Amino acid sequence: MITIKEVKLAADRISEYAHRTPVFSSTRINSMCGCRISFKCENLQRVGAFKFRGALNAVSSMPTEMLCKGVVTHSSGNHAQALALAAKIFNVDAYIVMPENAPTVKINAVREYGGKIIFCIPTLEARETATEKVISETGSAFVHPYNDDRIIAGQATCALEFLNQLVDAPDIVVAPVGGGGLLSGTAISTKSFSSDIKVYGAEPEMADDAYRSFKSGEIIPQTNPQTIADGLLTSLGDKTFEIIKSNVDDILLCSEDHIKQAMRLIFENLKMVVEPSGAVSLAVVLANLDKFRNKNVGLIISGGNIDISEFKW
Amino acid sequence: MITIKEVKLAADRISEYAHRTPVFSSTRINSMCGCRISFKCENLQRVGAFKFRGALNAVSSMPTEMLCKGVVTHSSGNHAQALALAAKIFNVDAYIVMPENAPTVKINAVREYGGKIIFCIPTLEARETATEKVISETGSAFVHPYNDDRIIAGQATCALEFLNQLVDAPDIVVAPVGGGGLLSGTAISTKSFSSDIKVYGAEPEMADDAYRSFKSGEIIPQTNPQTIADGLLTSLGDKTFEIIKSNVDDILLCSEDHIKQAMRLIFENLKMVVEPSGAVSLAVVLANLDKFRNKNVGLIISGGNIDISEFKW
Repeated sequence: MITIKEVKLAADRISEYAHRTPVFSSTRINSMCGCRISFKCENLQRVGAFKFRGALNAVSSMPTEMLCKGVVTHSSGNHAQALALAAKIFNVDAYIVMPENAPTVKINAVREYGGKIIFCIPTLEARETATEKVISETGSAFVHPYNDDRIIAGQATCALEFLNQLVDAPDIVVAPVGGGGLLSGTAISTKSFSSDIKVYGAEPEMADDAYRSFKSGEIIPQTNPQTIADGLLTSLGDKTFEIIKSNVDDILLCSEDHIKQAMRLIFENLKMVVEPSGAVSLAVVLANLDKFRNKNVGLIISGGNIDISEFKW
Repeated sequence: MITIKEVKLAADRISEYAHRTPVFSSTRINSMCGCRISFKCENLQRVGAFKFRGALNAVSSMPTEMLCKGVVTHSSGNHAQALALAAKIFNVDAYIVMPENAPTVKINAVREYGGKIIFCIPTLEARETATEKVISETGSAFVHPYNDDRIIAGQATCALEFLNQLVDAPDIVVAPVGGGGLLSGTAISTKSFSSDIKVYGAEPEMADDAYRSFKSGEIIPQTNPQTIADGLLTSLGDKTFEIIKSNVDDILLCSEDHIKQAMRLIFENLKMVVEPSGAVSLAVVLANLDKFRNKNVGLIISGGNIDISEFKW
C-alpha cells in the first residue's frame, strides 16, 4: 500500500506542470450549511480535473525505455484528456481507446491534447480487446484510470496541497468517489497529516456501489447507474478499496437534487463552473447537515468539464 | 482629478474587507487569440463584482458624523449590493432606491446584505425624487455608482493590485466601460505604473456611448441601449470622462456575438462564471485580434452576477 512518502515524491514530480489550484470559500454557503467550508478547486486544474495529477505522476515516473513506446488507456472521461496531456508534455504517444458513441466534445478534447484515438463499440469487452491490441502492436504501457499506485499517489497530492493551504486544520475532508483514486489518495494524505481529521467519501445514491462496498467489506460492482454525476459511474478497484477500507471514516450519499443544488450554489456563489461529479462533495453536506454542523470542512471540487450547451439547469 | 496617491490610500482602506482576487490564464484562449492574456477575476470579488471596491472605499472614507446617518444610492445593479454590504460592514444603514420592476434575484441580494429598499416606478425622474426624499428624511449620504472620486479611487485599486500580481508587465490593460468608474480608475493606476502600457476601454457596439464620446471629445449620452451586457447601459459622468479623455488610449467595440463567445470561452476554459458585462474585455480582443497579436494583455473580468435560470446559452 502506498504511503505519504510516495505522495510527496509525486508532488515533487508534478509540481513543474500541474497547477497549485486555489482554495475558495463563500460566506453565504457557510451560512446555509451551518459550517465553515473550504473548497479545493480542482476544476481549475489543467484539463479541468484532478485526473491530471495522477496521469502526470504515472507518466513522469516511468523509466525512459518504457515511456518511449507511449502510454495507453481506455476512458471517455477526464482521465483520457489527462493522459493525453501528460504524454504530450513528455513528448510521447498517448493511445486512447474510446467508445464510438463518446460525446464529440470529449473526443475533440483528447484530440486537442494530441491523443491518438482508437474507437471501439461501447462494451467492456470491445474496450479491453482494443486496448490489448494497441499494447501488442505498440508496446505502450497501460495506465489504469484509478486502480494503479502511481495514479493514487498522484491524486493524493491534491489533499496534501489542500491541507498545506489551509490556515486552520479541517475537522473533515470530503472527496467524491467513483473508482476511488481520488478518495483513496485523499485518505492517505489526510490521515498522514492528522489522524484526527475525518475523511468521507461522497457518492450519489443512484451510483452507491462504494457505499455498499464500504458497508459490506467487499467490492460490490456498480450495475447500470443513472446519475448525472457521469464521472462517478465506475466501481472501486482492489487497490483503491483496500486503502478506502482502512483509511476512510464513512461514505455519505446524496440525491440527484442535492447534486443540482450544489452545482447551482457553487455557480452562483463561488462563480465557478463545476461538473456534477465535482459538486457531489458539497451535495453530501447538503444531504447530511447535522454531520457537518459547526465544523471546519474541506471539500474537493474534483472537476469542471461540462458541456454547457447540453446542461439543463 | 484623483491621483495614484488616493488610489493607494483606498487600497489600504479596503484591504481588510475586500478580496485580493486571483489572476488566471488559459493556454487555449491564448492560442485562439494569438496573445498572452492574464485575467483579473473580479467576478470572485465580494458581491461578485469590482463595485465592492468603490462602495467600500466611499463608505470607509466618510467621517463618522456623516456615516452614522447612513448612505443612499439608486441602482438595480451590482453597485446596490456593493453599497449594502459596505454599509453592513460599517454597521450603518444603506437605503437603496430600486425600480419596482427590478429582477427578484437582485432585490433579494440587496435584502440579504441588509439594504433597505425603496421602490419607485422605473423612470429617471421617479428614481431621483425617491432618492431626494430619502436624503431629506434620513440625512443619509448619497453615493453615486461611478461619478464620484471615492468610487473611482476604489475601482482603481483593482488595476493597482492586478499590476502588482503580474510577473511581466502587460503591454495592454483592458477594462469594460459603462459609467466609466472602473475604466477611469484602471487608467489612473495603469498609467502611474507605466505610461508605456496602453489602456483600452471595452464596450458593446449596441451601447457605444463611451466610444462616441471619446471620439468626439464630449459626452454623448446613451439612448435606449439593447445589449446583453446589462451592466454597461449607463452613460459616462463628467468626472469619469475627464479621466478617460486624458488617460485612456482607445475604446474598442464588440458585437453581441463576441460577448457570448467570450462568456463561453471563460466558462469552458477558465471554469468561471462571468456576467455579459464582465466578458466584454475578452470580447473586444476577439473582435480586434490584430491589435493584440503577440502582446501581453491584462483583462479585467468585472463581474459574475448572472441568473443562470434565465440565461440562454
